[in-house]
Amino acid sequence: MCRWLAYWGTPVLLDTILYQPAHSLIDQSLHSKLGVETTNGDGFGVGWYSAANDTPALLREVGPAWSNRNLRELAGHVRSPLFFAHIRASTGTAVQQSNCHPFRYGRWMFMHNGAIADFPRMRRDLSLLVDPGLYSDMEGTTDSEVMFYLTLTFGLEQDPPAAVATMAGVVERVGREHGVEFPLQMTIALTDGERVWVFRYSSARASRSLFYSSRVDALRRLHPDLAFLREVSDETRLVVSEPLGDLPGAWNEVPENSYGVIQPGDDELHRFAPAAA
Amino acid sequence: MCRWLAYWGTPVLLDTILYQPAHSLIDQSLHSKLGVETTNGDGFGVGWYSAANDTPALLREVGPAWSNRNLRELAGHVRSPLFFAHIRASTGTAVQQSNCHPFRYGRWMFMHNGAIADFPRMRRDLSLLVDPGLYSDMEGTTDSEVMFYLTLTFGLEQDPPAAVATMAGVVERVGREHGVEFPLQMTIALTDGERVWVFRYSSARASRSLFYSSRVDALRRLHPDLAFLREVSDETRLVVSEPLGDLPGAWNEVPENSYGVIQPGDDELHRFAPAAA
Amino acid sequence: MCRWLAYWGTPVLLDTILYQPAHSLIDQSLHSKLGVETTNGDGFGVGWYSAANDTPALLREVGPAWSNRNLRELAGHVRSPLFFAHIRASTGTAVQQSNCHPFRYGRWMFMHNGAIADFPRMRRDLSLLVDPGLYSDMEGTTDSEVMFYLTLTFGLEQDPPAAVATMAGVVERVGREHGVEFPLQMTIALTDGERVWVFRYSSARASRSLFYSSRVDALRRLHPDLAFLREVSDETRLVVSEPLGDLPGAWNEVPENSYGVIQPGDDELHRFAPAAA
Amino acid sequence: MCRWLAYWGTPVLLDTILYQPAHSLIDQSLHSKLGVETTNGDGFGVGWYSAANDTPALLREVGPAWSNRNLRELAGHVRSPLFFAHIRASTGTAVQQSNCHPFRYGRWMFMHNGAIADFPRMRRDLSLLVDPGLYSDMEGTTDSEVMFYLTLTFGLEQDPPAAVATMAGVVERVGREHGVEFPLQMTIALTDGERVWVFRYSSARASRSLFYSSRVDALRRLHPDLAFLREVSDETRLVVSEPLGDLPGAWNEVPENSYGVIQPGDDELHRFAPAAA
Repeated sequence: MCRWLAYWGTPVLLDTILYQPAHSLIDQSLHSKLGVETTNGDGFGVGWYSAANDTPALLREVGPAWSNRNLRELAGHVRSPLFFAHIRASTGTAVQQSNCHPFRYGRWMFMHNGAIADFPRMRRDLSLLVDPGLYSDMEGTTDSEVMFYLTLTFGLEQDPPAAVATMAGVVERVGREHGVEFPLQMTIALTDGERVWVFRYSSARASRSLFYSSRVDALRRLHPDLAFLREVSDETRLVVSEPLGDLPGAWNEVPENSYGVIQPGDDELHRFAPAAA
Repeated sequence: MCRWLAYWGTPVLLDTILYQPAHSLIDQSLHSKLGVETTNGDGFGVGWYSAANDTPALLREVGPAWSNRNLRELAGHVRSPLFFAHIRASTGTAVQQSNCHPFRYGRWMFMHNGAIADFPRMRRDLSLLVDPGLYSDMEGTTDSEVMFYLTLTFGLEQDPPAAVATMAGVVERVGREHGVEFPLQMTIALTDGERVWVFRYSSARASRSLFYSSRVDALRRLHPDLAFLREVSDETRLVVSEPLGDLPGAWNEVPENSYGVIQPGDDELHRFAPAAA
Repeated sequence: MCRWLAYWGTPVLLDTILYQPAHSLIDQSLHSKLGVETTNGDGFGVGWYSAANDTPALLREVGPAWSNRNLRELAGHVRSPLFFAHIRASTGTAVQQSNCHPFRYGRWMFMHNGAIADFPRMRRDLSLLVDPGLYSDMEGTTDSEVMFYLTLTFGLEQDPPAAVATMAGVVERVGREHGVEFPLQMTIALTDGERVWVFRYSSARASRSLFYSSRVDALRRLHPDLAFLREVSDETRLVVSEPLGDLPGAWNEVPENSYGVIQPGDDELHRFAPAAA
Repeated sequence: MCRWLAYWGTPVLLDTILYQPAHSLIDQSLHSKLGVETTNGDGFGVGWYSAANDTPALLREVGPAWSNRNLRELAGHVRSPLFFAHIRASTGTAVQQSNCHPFRYGRWMFMHNGAIADFPRMRRDLSLLVDPGLYSDMEGTTDSEVMFYLTLTFGLEQDPPAAVATMAGVVERVGREHGVEFPLQMTIALTDGERVWVFRYSSARASRSLFYSSRVDALRRLHPDLAFLREVSDETRLVVSEPLGDLPGAWNEVPENSYGVIQPGDDELHRFAPAAA
């Protein structure tokens, strides 16, 4: 469906991550290897934090990432310690800016690869569960946006893993009420500008691919010649839908039905299960 | 907010109506005289019926009409006996294709100039009144689209004036429940490909401008030299947000709080009032 | 680089050719099998003749064809006896409307798949050979557009094959002057609204793929059940960058370094060689 | 035709200059007071320097500035000590990214409001005077881009005022050769990232409007309460097509046929005359 990437760590030029790697996200927009489609050309988005503003900036466009000059310009001039990037392969919903990830609410950003099965039949029921005060902020037609607003509704700002678990539980319950056997398939990234939470889950236990990078200090021992590894902190971390290259030892699969937290100090990896809802 | 135009009658090249008049809709996109804004540059749409297909065709784009080459091409090559055209001036909602008029459902087209006051506060309540089976077809974020889907919900296909009256009644009721004094302001055009219904109404009895063209036979007597008038049938009719020129005798205001029906044989003009809802 | 399609014959809904075939041009925009790239997502165009106008209409857009709703609408409502369609894979030049095919001059249309080797180095020399009176009509930056204007300069309106031969000769001469061994690689379609000329040529005798459909009467004998074949005239003909499906007997390769003429009565196939220039 | 703005001085959030003023450039995109057109909706661009890169970044888009969310996002997150912004009103040339200002070459940026009279007739002659090595870098169809490349050809990087004078002289000579009485009308801004040069000139001595802001220390004495004035250095300077507001004492007309230099230390203002060419 889509491909995404989350970066946390030493501030880098976006270009370093978005364009430089052999199998960069931009390359994946034309030649995805692990995605459902090889082409992810139905819009893209990048969201980044900077010193200038408490909330993240969003650049989102409806055309393909591979030919977008503004994205290339931005990537060559903006440094950030925490950014999300997403390329979209629509499964039928409109190719419009408001359907492009990341989505934002205040300081929070959210992006997603996956799908709610049979979403058009469930869209109304799920939308009604969104906090009425948030309903009107929804601008697009994707399952992803509804998932984000449900997560906000269920307490994202207080406890992200619990909020996502409730959202997933609700989606599964509503799905089953509509006779859908495997309602949910998701890889999600969330951030408040300080920490990043990533989730990999599917009702059928056959989730889309998701990988996290190894600790930089370990990688540096394996690859002492790589300049990039000397420039970033030990804690710098990437989470990606598919590896950006084939550097031995660099990429680890996020286990099925689990979630991770990237944060100052030790990162975490936990089991994930939807909450009864 | 917006400007629109509905044509019914002898098949003409769209260009004849969209580009040729001195104060054509394309001119209005830059230099509207009677609109709230002089510029209507936030997207446009044209919908037309042809012999090739039962349902109307839609061309909708997010850029301004005045510079759109595809619109100009189409207008120079497509003939139609019934078409709608709309230029948009957003009042804040996203500039995206799914927010551009006309909207379509099966054989039906709908376009609108006006606003539901304080729509973001009422969007959820109104959307919940849309038939659950239609809810998921809504792709945009405009009050106009919700008005169309409410009209469909309330029986558009059986009795258009009654359905619009119920929709208007519902909008006024929900508005008043939210403490809004004058909830509705609308000029609407509707068609099933055979007849055209136009409505002018506002809660405050201060509706946006709306004009209909005089009968062609009467105009022909006034202006015997005008080639265009000799080429179209007596019954050919235009309804427009603002006159396309200053031909004496050509334009008549649609009265406040009324609706008209353009159809084979005599057209009709009636009082319009929201239905209790 | 690109994929294209030319249709000549019984008027059909564009949809029949553009969307219905298993490996339609729209499918090729995502999954080209014989192209240099599998994805052709850097803009598209369709040009068609109609009774309403002497010159063909053009719809050209910078986004991918596969997600373009306006193209789909048009294809479902426009019938034409002669149309060109093109999907673009840029090799670096700007993704902008003026770089999308078909190009038009008066009644003429032109589209191209291929490349002038090292074009940026030759662009100036070739542009200077364009008729000074035509120079300012060039709006884009592609080799294709320059090739079209050179062809116009060298007498397209009098003798299309001779004009293309001179253009090809000039490109090869200028290329060799710049030290390029194989300057030209082209499959071209040209039409004046009556006849269609198609060319397949490359300096290296390794041209991009090009196929023409078999005579409809022969195909009808092979496939008596195919409804489409019963609805179109014996002379109806398609020329395509790659076959639209795998119907046995339907597709024939245009031979290397040759050109064809599609016209009322017998079509023609000739050898093609650049003219000394 | 267009409106533009150049900022030089204390690093500020782009938003402060592009959106905050009462009659900001964004407001001018809908409601220009001194321009030829009130609407400047045919694309826009912003170019800025940052610590991350030697060359300036460009964001250019074909839609109107007033509704562009990416521009708003960027303006709210990017700080820069030197930036250009431009809104375009096309006089007929294509609305495409490559026709949007600013133009860039290495560290240099250029933007323009004005026109070469009868440019289509002169485009070829002027393009041929561009350095052959630069010819192929021209991607658009505007007189502005040709003016920039002529200026580069005539020594921009060595002596900007002399290069612009030669360019203007060449345009006037070629214009007169084509029988044009008043060939040139221009207000130009140029920068290498250190200094900014602005030019106001027209063959007819009736140039488009251009204003520069007063010295900040003088303004601060006049308006001791204005927070913005306390936050920027004495030397901070704006040059604009039309004033961003009506602050008494803030704006001074750039005299007819003159040019200014904004730089560390004292700025300069000189007479400008085309060089014999």
